[in-house]
Amino acid sequence: MTSGPGGRAHGPAFLFDLDGTLLDSVYQHVVAWHEALLDAGIAVPAWSVHRRIGMSGGLFLGALAHETGRAFDEHDVGRLTAAHAAAFERMRASVRPLPGARELLAHLSEREVPWAIATSGLDASARPALALLGVPDAVLVTRDDVRHAKPDPDLFLAAATAIGADPSHCLVVGDSVWDLLASRRAGILGLGVMTGGYGAGELERAGAYRVYEDPADLLDRLYEVGVRPS
Amino acid sequence: MTSGPGGRAHGPAFLFDLDGTLLDSVYQHVVAWHEALLDAGIAVPAWSVHRRIGMSGGLFLGALAHETGRAFDEHDVGRLTAAHAAAFERMRASVRPLPGARELLAHLSEREVPWAIATSGLDASARPALALLGVPDAVLVTRDDVRHAKPDPDLFLAAATAIGADPSHCLVVGDSVWDLLASRRAGILGLGVMTGGYGAGELERAGAYRVYEDPADLLDRLYEVGVRPS
Repeated sequence: MTSGPGGRAHGPAFLFDLDGTLLDSVYQHVVAWHEALLDAGIAVPAWSVHRRIGMSGGLFLGALAHETGRAFDEHDVGRLTAAHAAAFERMRASVRPLPGARELLAHLSEREVPWAIATSGLDASARPALALLGVPDAVLVTRDDVRHAKPDPDLFLAAATAIGADPSHCLVVGDSVWDLLASRRAGILGLGVMTGGYGAGELERAGAYRVYEDPADLLDRLYEVGVRPS
Repeated sequence: MTSGPGGRAHGPAFLFDLDGTLLDSVYQHVVAWHEALLDAGIAVPAWSVHRRIGMSGGLFLGALAHETGRAFDEHDVGRLTAAHAAAFERMRASVRPLPGARELLAHLSEREVPWAIATSGLDASARPALALLGVPDAVLVTRDDVRHAKPDPDLFLAAATAIGADPSHCLVVGDSVWDLLASRRAGILGLGVMTGGYGAGELERAGAYRVYEDPADLLDRLYEVGVRPS
């Protein structure tokens, strides 16, 4: 693939979510948040934690406050965040790249298709994942770089800017409805992957143009979204 | 509610799945299986483990063998089962009844609506959950009682027999597509709950007559499935 005017390749650029899309880490995050909340006396069923993975931490705690009738001050938030991080750390050894994730990113780079990673997570927790994915120098946009994380559009818009891509020429790839809501608000077409534990129908209803099983499935059918075979 | 001829109450009898339906334990099982498999050198993404929770253990390992091209002998199965049990044990403290589960069972008992629990799990791991649910003497049918677990119909049929209920007067309540497949094969109407992490659409497509958020939601609208207010 050759680059067009302004360095942009012909065909779409890709903006990837991280947890659940490239990394097999959603279930560890669910169990870690569930434990951290229970330890703080906040009983929230695990499935409702699962449904909120990928949204901004502030919005997540705001939803919990609304549902449990508890107010969280800065101290509570700090304590919960630390308890989640500690619980997740105990499970980190089981976090792996999802099938095809490394190969998909390598293939796009080789073809000079621009791509970036945009996550609601913090830079400190997201950056170590890049080595795991074989892309230590990837363009990474995190919670630290924007005012609002997903489902606000800021992360994906910042990621598009970071790789010099027009949002209308981008595709978001995400595993959760929060990615798809953020992509729609950014005016970017969204693709779903089932690796975060949402069913295909749920992702389609949230606006996914198409749903792939995992990154390997997307790599295998990249032509379906306009990446021309060489 | 009064009992009809043969001791059967007017209105439906209920056959409940356990994990993910009455107990908030699905995500701990996912992480425990995921870890046990990784430790045995079997890399299976967590979401695909999640989608198989609730099916018979034999079928689960058969599916893995098919997908990974590995054969599991009796020794492997024993080792994996023990590794899962050990990993789950470390997370058992976070297993709680789901919202409304205790209240729903108590309400049905008080109204003399017959009910039983039918699980693909083993008796040894399921029985301790009964105390947690406040029903130490509940009718419990497990993997140990039947030839084939879910999605075969055996467990639900045995549970109906155990409470003297005609399957055509029963309702299965489950969180997974395996419960719904088993209920359809048993000729029993199925209801879904979202507490196992499946979306409502997925449960409906699998045959759920109706989907409730959790046991509390079902309790609140029991009249919708034919339990007459007193």
